[in-house]
Amino acid sequence: MKKILNITIIGLGHIGGSLAASFKNTHGKKVSITGIDNSPSVIRQALKSDFFSEVSTLRKSKTINESNVIFVSTSIRSIPLIFSELIKVSFKHNIIITDVGSVKEEIFNSATKILPEKFEFVGGHPIAGTEKTGFKNLVSGLFENKPVFISGVRAKKQSVMLIKSLWKSLGCLVYSVPPSEHDKIFGHLSHLPHVLAFGLKNIANKKLTSKEILKYGGTSYKDYSRISESSEALWSEIFLSNRKNLIKGIKEFRVYLDKLESLLESNSKEKTEKYLKL
Amino acid sequence: MKKILNITIIGLGHIGGSLAASFKNTHGKKVSITGIDNSPSVIRQALKSDFFSEVSTLRKSKTINESNVIFVSTSIRSIPLIFSELIKVSFKHNIIITDVGSVKEEIFNSATKILPEKFEFVGGHPIAGTEKTGFKNLVSGLFENKPVFISGVRAKKQSVMLIKSLWKSLGCLVYSVPPSEHDKIFGHLSHLPHVLAFGLKNIANKKLTSKEILKYGGTSYKDYSRISESSEALWSEIFLSNRKNLIKGIKEFRVYLDKLESLLESNSKEKTEKYLKL
Repeated sequence: MKKILNITIIGLGHIGGSLAASFKNTHGKKVSITGIDNSPSVIRQALKSDFFSEVSTLRKSKTINESNVIFVSTSIRSIPLIFSELIKVSFKHNIIITDVGSVKEEIFNSATKILPEKFEFVGGHPIAGTEKTGFKNLVSGLFENKPVFISGVRAKKQSVMLIKSLWKSLGCLVYSVPPSEHDKIFGHLSHLPHVLAFGLKNIANKKLTSKEILKYGGTSYKDYSRISESSEALWSEIFLSNRKNLIKGIKEFRVYLDKLESLLESNSKEKTEKYLKL
Repeated sequence: MKKILNITIIGLGHIGGSLAASFKNTHGKKVSITGIDNSPSVIRQALKSDFFSEVSTLRKSKTINESNVIFVSTSIRSIPLIFSELIKVSFKHNIIITDVGSVKEEIFNSATKILPEKFEFVGGHPIAGTEKTGFKNLVSGLFENKPVFISGVRAKKQSVMLIKSLWKSLGCLVYSVPPSEHDKIFGHLSHLPHVLAFGLKNIANKKLTSKEILKYGGTSYKDYSRISESSEALWSEIFLSNRKNLIKGIKEFRVYLDKLESLLESNSKEKTEKYLKL
C-alpha cells in the first residue's frame, strides 16, 4: 500500500485553486487534498471540481487534522490569523506549514512567533501570479517552469526537501533565499513596478477620459494597464507588508525623477541620453 | 497608363524601412520609392532589398526631385535639419511632406517656420514603434491595424486625403488630433511610461546585480525591461521635444508617490487599497 500525502490548501483563490488543480492532475490518487475557504460561493465552486476530498471552512473541516502539509494561500494579512487558528487543530501527524505570500520577512516573523515548535514552517513564494484573481480563473499547469523561492525556514531538512520536491513535481525551479534579501529584491523588481503602474493609471484617469486612453494607449501603456489591473486588495497588503523596502524604493525613484526633470529643463540631449543609459 | 506615385522615405530605420517594405508589398509597381539615409552601411543594406528605385544620401539623390510625397522618418531632432535641406531641392511636382515623429507640436512649428508655403505639410504619428530599431529589423505589415494620428496640417484637403489614404492602404486606422492635444495625451500614455521604465531599470541596476535581476525578475519587471530596452538616443529626443508636458507628468507622478508613501507610513490597509483604486 502506497502512502497518500494529505495536503490542505487554505485560501482557494487563483493561486490556491491552481495549486489544487496542479497537484491533483500531477499526482492523482497519491494525494488527498482538503480545500479550505471562508467564502460560501468559492466553496460551492470548489465542490464542483474533482480536486478535493473535502471543501469546507477552517473551523468546520473534518479532514484538516489528517494533513501532512498545509499550503496557506490566503491574502498576506490573513496569514497570521490562519496561524492562530491552526494551532487549535489537533493534528494526527507531524505537520509542515508553508505559504505562497509575495513578502516573506513579516510572514516568517509571524510564523516563528505564533506557531509552537512542533509546527514546522517553510516559507515559499512562487512567481506565478498574474492580474487574474479567483478560483474561477485557476490554471492547471500555472507553475510549470516558474521559479519558487523558499524563504524563511524553521523545519527539519527532510521537511524542507518535501516542500521543494512538491514544487518541483509541478515543474517549478526551486531556489532558496533569506527573507530579508527576498523582500529587498522583490521590493525593487515587483512591488515598485506595481506602484509605478498604479500611479500611471491614477494620473491617466485624472488627466484623460477613458475614451482617450482607449484610443491613444499604445503598447507601453497596455503593459502598464495589464499590471495595474491587479487586485488592489492583494497589492495594498503586499505594499504594506514590504513597506520598509518599498518606501526606500519610492525615495530612490523620486531622486531619479528629480534628476531627469532637471535634465529636461536644461534641454541637454547628450546628458539626457547618457542618464537614460544608466 | 497609370500614374506612378513617387514616394521618398528619409531615414531608413525601423519605421522608415518598414514603411518602404509595406508600401512596396502593397502597391508594387504603382509606387516608386526613393530611400534616403546618411549612413553608408544602412544604404548598403537598403540596396540589397528590392523596395527602392534609388537609395542615396539626401544631397546625392538624383530622384528625390521627382517626389510627390516625402516621409521624414529620421530622429526628431534631425527633422528641422531635413526641412532646411529639402527647401534646396528643385522639385518637379507639387510636394507633400509628412513625418512619423512621436511628438507633434515642435515638429509642426518647425515645419511652418522653415518650409515655404509651396511645401504642403501633413504631420503624422503611427503607433507602431517597438523596442526594436534599425533597417535590419524592418517588419513588412508593421502598420496593419495600427492607429496613425494626423496632427499638424498645413496642406490642401486633397493632400491630407492622400496621406490618410496611403496610411489606410497599409491597414492603419487614421485619426486626426491637434498637435498640442496629441502631445499632452502621449506625454501621459507613452512618454511618462517610458520615463518610469527607464527609472526602474536605473534603480534596479544600482541596487541589484544583473544575476539577481535575471533570476528574480517576474512578469511585471519583464514588461518594464522590454520598454526600457528602447533606444535611449530616440527617447531622449522624444522626452526633450515634449518636455513641457513630460515635466508636468513627472510632477504629478511625484505627488502620487508622496501620497502613497505617507499611506504606507501610516500602515492603513483601507486607505492604501482605496488610493490604489483611484
